[in-house]
Amino acid sequence: MNFSVFVPPGIAGRQAPALYFLAGLTCSDETFMIKAGAQRLAAQLGLILVACDTSPRSVEIPGDRESWDFGIGAGFYVDATEPGWKDHYRMASYVNRELPALVEEHFGAHTDKRGIFGHSMGGHGALVIGLRHPQRWHSLSALAPIANPTAVPWGQKAFSRYLGPQSAEWEQWDASCLMRQRAFPRPILVDQGLADEFLTQQLRPEALEAAAHSSGQALTLRRHERYGHGYWFIQSVVADHLEHHSRMLQ
Amino acid sequence: MNFSVFVPPGIAGRQAPALYFLAGLTCSDETFMIKAGAQRLAAQLGLILVACDTSPRSVEIPGDRESWDFGIGAGFYVDATEPGWKDHYRMASYVNRELPALVEEHFGAHTDKRGIFGHSMGGHGALVIGLRHPQRWHSLSALAPIANPTAVPWGQKAFSRYLGPQSAEWEQWDASCLMRQRAFPRPILVDQGLADEFLTQQLRPEALEAAAHSSGQALTLRRHERYGHGYWFIQSVVADHLEHHSRMLQ
Repeated sequence: MNFSVFVPPGIAGRQAPALYFLAGLTCSDETFMIKAGAQRLAAQLGLILVACDTSPRSVEIPGDRESWDFGIGAGFYVDATEPGWKDHYRMASYVNRELPALVEEHFGAHTDKRGIFGHSMGGHGALVIGLRHPQRWHSLSALAPIANPTAVPWGQKAFSRYLGPQSAEWEQWDASCLMRQRAFPRPILVDQGLADEFLTQQLRPEALEAAAHSSGQALTLRRHERYGHGYWFIQSVVADHLEHHSRMLQ
Repeated sequence: MNFSVFVPPGIAGRQAPALYFLAGLTCSDETFMIKAGAQRLAAQLGLILVACDTSPRSVEIPGDRESWDFGIGAGFYVDATEPGWKDHYRMASYVNRELPALVEEHFGAHTDKRGIFGHSMGGHGALVIGLRHPQRWHSLSALAPIANPTAVPWGQKAFSRYLGPQSAEWEQWDASCLMRQRAFPRPILVDQGLADEFLTQQLRPEALEAAAHSSGQALTLRRHERYGHGYWFIQSVVADHLEHHSRMLQ
């Protein structure tokens, strides 16, 4: 697994908080670093930025290249349980444990100040991993997340092949299902563009909003007119996310 | 010719200064907009950003795809005089006249507040166009420019094929030759990374520095340790360039 790390100048020798970004379908560990324009503010805030890949790349599994929304580039940040996938497609464990251990050992990241956010499929991943492991993640946000994957085509396709037929297990990987039952202990920021071509069919932020209402989750869901799904949107709001995490990680 | 324009929100109806970016070898009109992370600050400063392509793309000329440093993606911002090229490879006239006319007509840019900057081949282009037409360009800067193309392999290859055998004409397209004889009427900012892999053989900022000394050009040439030639470097210094132009264009 490749990953990208930005270490702000001047933090050598002292532990800095680290903010992990999970990218969307088809992206790699390079996409956010190249396109989001986040490094300048991360340097000012003293935040280490970490971006991981969206699936394993060094194994070949039958079917992993048949479509852009499943397999390579589309790990969905779950730990697969189905034969063929369960030995390698363990993105949740990788993001939650393996990657932070490497970043903390080799780049001086603080072991008790971790933030996580992501975009689209990665917004789903960040919300799910944060909600499942709130003791390990101290700040949480998302951009245009797949907020209710068990109810939409992208999620149903991926979950059925990584996790097997629809079951209660699926709900453990769905941010809206999780949030209905438990609140993350700190406020969550979510941004969504209203000109996003995937909004209605794939993203469903209203499900997350309803879940937050049920559990008492502190959620700021901002809807932005005229913004689409891509990195122009991310460039436009990423500073607010870095500032959100920086405040939470103080 | 395709070009990219960023118009800051809230400037409709009033003329805003426009800053033109000329990209380097192999880039297109999209590269700067995607990779430089400049829009947020441009919005704050009220600057229109314009990025053009690096050569014509809709014509096919024998030899235009044989190498990455000549022809497609490598117009060198000159007006070609050689047969085969002179009808279409007129990037200098395009940047100096045709493109601003379009931007001023369709995007409300101010007709008397134009800035120009660029990177590598585009740094050369910005310096040459600014120095040749100081009445049209009111602010000027460059990042890792090919500062003395008549003396380096990239420039010699391109000039010999666009302009013919080496002659006095070449010097009219060389920023260091031009600056030796005339100063741009305002201060110029140039940034250069010292870990730039092209620094010694292709860029030669010291020639520009010597020329500025000869003509009395106000030149701030900043050398940055450990920075290379690519967009990480541009991301790191682009804010200073926008602020430079914003000050000059007030």
